[in-house]
Amino acid sequence: MKKIIQAVKGTREFYPEQMFARNFIYEKALAASEMFGYQEWDGPFIEPIELYAAKSGEELVKKQSFTFDDRGGEAVALRPELTPSLARMIAAKQGELNFPVRWWSFGPFWRYESPQRGRTREFFQWNIDMLGVDSPEADAELIAVGATFLRSVGLSSKLAQIFVNNRRLMESQFDALDISKDKRVDVSNLVDRRAKMEPAKWDAYALEIGLSQKQLDGLKELLGNFDLWKQSEELTRAFAALEAMGVRDYVKFDPNIMRGLLYYTGTVFEAFDTSGSVKRAIFGGGRYDNLLADVGGQPLSGVGFAMGDVVVGIILQEAGLIPEFQPSPAQVLVTVFDEKLMMQSFALANELRSAGLNAMVYPEPAKLPKQFKFADRMKMKVALVVGPDEAEKGLVVVKNLTSGEQVQVRKEAVFESIKGILNNA
Amino acid sequence: MKKIIQAVKGTREFYPEQMFARNFIYEKALAASEMFGYQEWDGPFIEPIELYAAKSGEELVKKQSFTFDDRGGEAVALRPELTPSLARMIAAKQGELNFPVRWWSFGPFWRYESPQRGRTREFFQWNIDMLGVDSPEADAELIAVGATFLRSVGLSSKLAQIFVNNRRLMESQFDALDISKDKRVDVSNLVDRRAKMEPAKWDAYALEIGLSQKQLDGLKELLGNFDLWKQSEELTRAFAALEAMGVRDYVKFDPNIMRGLLYYTGTVFEAFDTSGSVKRAIFGGGRYDNLLADVGGQPLSGVGFAMGDVVVGIILQEAGLIPEFQPSPAQVLVTVFDEKLMMQSFALANELRSAGLNAMVYPEPAKLPKQFKFADRMKMKVALVVGPDEAEKGLVVVKNLTSGEQVQVRKEAVFESIKGILNNA
Repeated sequence: MKKIIQAVKGTREFYPEQMFARNFIYEKALAASEMFGYQEWDGPFIEPIELYAAKSGEELVKKQSFTFDDRGGEAVALRPELTPSLARMIAAKQGELNFPVRWWSFGPFWRYESPQRGRTREFFQWNIDMLGVDSPEADAELIAVGATFLRSVGLSSKLAQIFVNNRRLMESQFDALDISKDKRVDVSNLVDRRAKMEPAKWDAYALEIGLSQKQLDGLKELLGNFDLWKQSEELTRAFAALEAMGVRDYVKFDPNIMRGLLYYTGTVFEAFDTSGSVKRAIFGGGRYDNLLADVGGQPLSGVGFAMGDVVVGIILQEAGLIPEFQPSPAQVLVTVFDEKLMMQSFALANELRSAGLNAMVYPEPAKLPKQFKFADRMKMKVALVVGPDEAEKGLVVVKNLTSGEQVQVRKEAVFESIKGILNNA
Repeated sequence: MKKIIQAVKGTREFYPEQMFARNFIYEKALAASEMFGYQEWDGPFIEPIELYAAKSGEELVKKQSFTFDDRGGEAVALRPELTPSLARMIAAKQGELNFPVRWWSFGPFWRYESPQRGRTREFFQWNIDMLGVDSPEADAELIAVGATFLRSVGLSSKLAQIFVNNRRLMESQFDALDISKDKRVDVSNLVDRRAKMEPAKWDAYALEIGLSQKQLDGLKELLGNFDLWKQSEELTRAFAALEAMGVRDYVKFDPNIMRGLLYYTGTVFEAFDTSGSVKRAIFGGGRYDNLLADVGGQPLSGVGFAMGDVVVGIILQEAGLIPEFQPSPAQVLVTVFDEKLMMQSFALANELRSAGLNAMVYPEPAKLPKQFKFADRMKMKVALVVGPDEAEKGLVVVKNLTSGEQVQVRKEAVFESIKGILNNA
């Protein structure tokens, strides 16, 4: 016996039960997206490295992505993110599209990172963006889509929160603290690390990057000021819109939310589970202004976010929020009594399917107890038997697999009899 | 302005309209699969080259697939097919699974081939298999799933046909013609090429690979004998089951259908559109016996088929069978009268969503004609207006975008009013 060839590290195997969980997340993302009128789209899975290098630099792309030269000699990457493909596709049809464009997508992505809790090398990601409008209300809509998703999977605002900040607000505060422009990236990184460092070490680090003691004190006060949003017209308007959309309870201003300094330009947000069981964000996004600059289109403002399936999958699993796995998409097993009567079973299954019912037929003659046991393990609700007696008289035995009861009914009445059982199950 | 970075040759860009078509195919594959009780699953998209090399040889894998060394030094491939992943996953849980296993999947695959009509380097494929049963009726079920799919997308048995053959039947015929075992691969290839070669050249080719004139004559008679299936118990039973499942009209015996000699062991089948507009098969599959041999599991028989999205997509497009594209998943646009009344529109859209209706709100103040024009282009059915008058009196203007009619209704009656329009549209 040969050895079993193992899967590649960080990839995913979806047995029907895991697929069921993945589909649960996909369907809720779909519903939240479409509820707000977003159209589904998708980009290629393989892209030229240059497409990503324009945004993050080729070295970083090569370090963090799966990249290779295809046989045509082109350097390509398995897409690590969707935004550059979005930019290219929008730029290519910028003159034809109906703006505002609202698009969402759900598909596979790859990053070459160390697999750990909440992180795999192959993952699925929900992306959703609105392009062509620059308004705080558009920002709020994207946050509301995220909140709608959280609510729809059973994550109440007690279990998950969306933390919101605004880059322009922070820039004006950094201006007030006299932090020079060339230190802004360092200061952003500093803020990002605060939760992960000891306070004394964090202070030392702040001075090390060149902040004065006065600036450090000012920064700490700033990061503790949770009313700061009231000074931002963008945020006050966004929060009013979130109130109007019924999701204000999910949202909290937090000056500690930074996200990529070079990319985001306005409101930014990240969702976390309140238990702190997974430290990584459930989703994150914000407003950006330079989407098409790197791919040669006209300037276009947008707002969007991305959610991986891994973090939210763990949180839902731990909270018991993934619905119970239903192994079989068919609730009805048509058993096969013996070889002679097999075609009667196949024809019966066909009639049920034509009537709109998913029905499985046992695909070979086998002892009935074995077939019932199979149906049981697949958590099916009904088994049908056509024995010699029934075949002769145009009857079918309908067995309720939950109660164990069985009745003989006329063939024409089988469908109604099954529906009665399924409706009461 | 920078140049637009082009997509990689043979990859796919799905704008909402193309995504709509891809989803149409996906949803019909899903429905046909679940109607017969198949469970959805998925494998990794990156796999070790060895996994495919076991079946087809490493050289062939490298030639026909996207392969590369990942940074861990492992030689990997973007999956060119699903069966080896299926084999590994089944082998790993062979003791736990409930057989017969019925699984289906729909996802991306990659092959390094010259892009041409009906063939891209990145494509989607529907895979469906039944494992653990070796019966002609199981073979028939898979063919019936395929026929059900064809019927469900509008390809009647006049527009598409499934051609069926049986490897064991052919082997016995080759035995009768005294064609030696070591010539069987060459003869299979010969049969495969018949439709593509001129008759005289094909004859010459047959003699060239070592057939005698008598064998060639016998082979030609064999390939013209469309009643041959009556000599095969497997095929007669499969055809009876296809009759019982109501899809006999889709199926024709054809001794010219060969498929991979080294892989398939029993019944084989391929579907084609009858117009001949695309020469490649819509789907193809058959019975195999050695699924787990290469990955170290216990012997297991199976039957299955695979369908790419590209060929069927072209056929459906040409036959006008892709449903009309509905650009917006929301049929209702809530317009924004002005900045002051914006929150009224957001709150109204939220109420409609809470009632279960997909509703889009215009995300910034704009002239009403511009908003109506947008709704029109998105083929939406209803636009709502909350102006100063309406806001004061608790009213909403409901505009039927198809007829142009508009009525003022009380806010509480908006939902019913919209439903009336949508139900009549």
